[in-house]
Amino acid sequence: MKKTIIVFSGDLDKVLAAFVIANGAAAMDDEVTMFFTFWGLNVLRKAEKVPAKKSFLQAMFGAMMPRGAEQLGLSKMNFGGMGAKMMKKVMKQQNITSLPELITAAQEQGIKMIACTMSMDVMGIREQELVEGLEFAGVATYLGEADEANVNLFI
Amino acid sequence: MKKTIIVFSGDLDKVLAAFVIANGAAAMDDEVTMFFTFWGLNVLRKAEKVPAKKSFLQAMFGAMMPRGAEQLGLSKMNFGGMGAKMMKKVMKQQNITSLPELITAAQEQGIKMIACTMSMDVMGIREQELVEGLEFAGVATYLGEADEANVNLFI
Amino acid sequence: MKKTIIVFSGDLDKVLAAFVIANGAAAMDDEVTMFFTFWGLNVLRKAEKVPAKKSFLQAMFGAMMPRGAEQLGLSKMNFGGMGAKMMKKVMKQQNITSLPELITAAQEQGIKMIACTMSMDVMGIREQELVEGLEFAGVATYLGEADEANVNLFI
Repeated sequence: MKKTIIVFSGDLDKVLAAFVIANGAAAMDDEVTMFFTFWGLNVLRKAEKVPAKKSFLQAMFGAMMPRGAEQLGLSKMNFGGMGAKMMKKVMKQQNITSLPELITAAQEQGIKMIACTMSMDVMGIREQELVEGLEFAGVATYLGEADEANVNLFI
Repeated sequence: MKKTIIVFSGDLDKVLAAFVIANGAAAMDDEVTMFFTFWGLNVLRKAEKVPAKKSFLQAMFGAMMPRGAEQLGLSKMNFGGMGAKMMKKVMKQQNITSLPELITAAQEQGIKMIACTMSMDVMGIREQELVEGLEFAGVATYLGEADEANVNLFI
Repeated sequence: MKKTIIVFSGDLDKVLAAFVIANGAAAMDDEVTMFFTFWGLNVLRKAEKVPAKKSFLQAMFGAMMPRGAEQLGLSKMNFGGMGAKMMKKVMKQQNITSLPELITAAQEQGIKMIACTMSMDVMGIREQELVEGLEFAGVATYLGEADEANVNLFI
């Protein structure tokens, strides 16, 4: 049965958890919808700077936030990025799938990835700054999906 | 169908997400129950100081925690309140409903707002310190509501 | 009906919320499964140091993370552990069940506690470092449990 996950967090550890659950469910033939809001939008940002019209404040937010899955920090013990680097290294040593690989797998498995348009307005993030293959929608769409699902998580 | 949201966080960004989802669901004619625990209780505090009997430690907690929706900080990039101020300014520029407006809308839409009595004891928050229109209950009430709902989020 | 809780957080306040909900549900005769991942594994660590083979990075992670329920900090206002100490003191004054007591109650009520094996690999935590009475499994097991439950929370 369908699962939905709101990815509110942009922390590497929480986003990893979200994608492990999402891919696990898709592998078990569940439909999965991931809804990216607030800091979670950073997961979907392209790694390179993309020109986009922004207000001064939006440009400041944009400059300070991580661009894409490779740049995310940990929610705890990040130590200016060192914690995230350490965790990625341990994961490699243990042959655990990395976040970028999990995102690719999610797309290949047909997991629906929706970027929250209201959050994009707040954060000043434009469509062209985000990776390909997304849908763009608001809370009503999320609620419609959640109504059809039997597991709904907020991460 | 009914939705429940546990508002554990007292961060502006997370509380905004909670109220956007709650109001969205109520607008779609869902019954909605919000259950405020721990830091989430700060959302419901009156802006002015209200006299209340507290132990020394409870008084300290009370003095350090934000009083009401206007004072909440961001979960990330708060920079001593500057981040929250910036986000509120961007939201105004983008004509996005503010948190105090969302709370009023929630009350007008008949969303049930419950303050967790156990958390109130831990935090030393008294009924008279909280806004009007709340119910006061514990985990059994939450579970009863959640059993009737098809979407249950912990934020 | 069954409830599942993913305990991702290792913060005292969030873990308290998880165990209050879990014990509340079990008291109402619900089956409950708690699935401990990432920082949540720290809740289950034995208080004493247990010899275990680890890589250098895993040993570093292990040394920096709290060992067991007594050592957890708050998600906010922890002030190097002082906040957690204050909260525990207030809880005692108010006769509120402590986290170690809630964990014992959970075990006595037959709540199923599963440690996430993938997270154990990432964090470098070995079975012998965790308390007795756990099951060890991955995301597929979690999803199987969640499919049978009507309330599924991510904390």
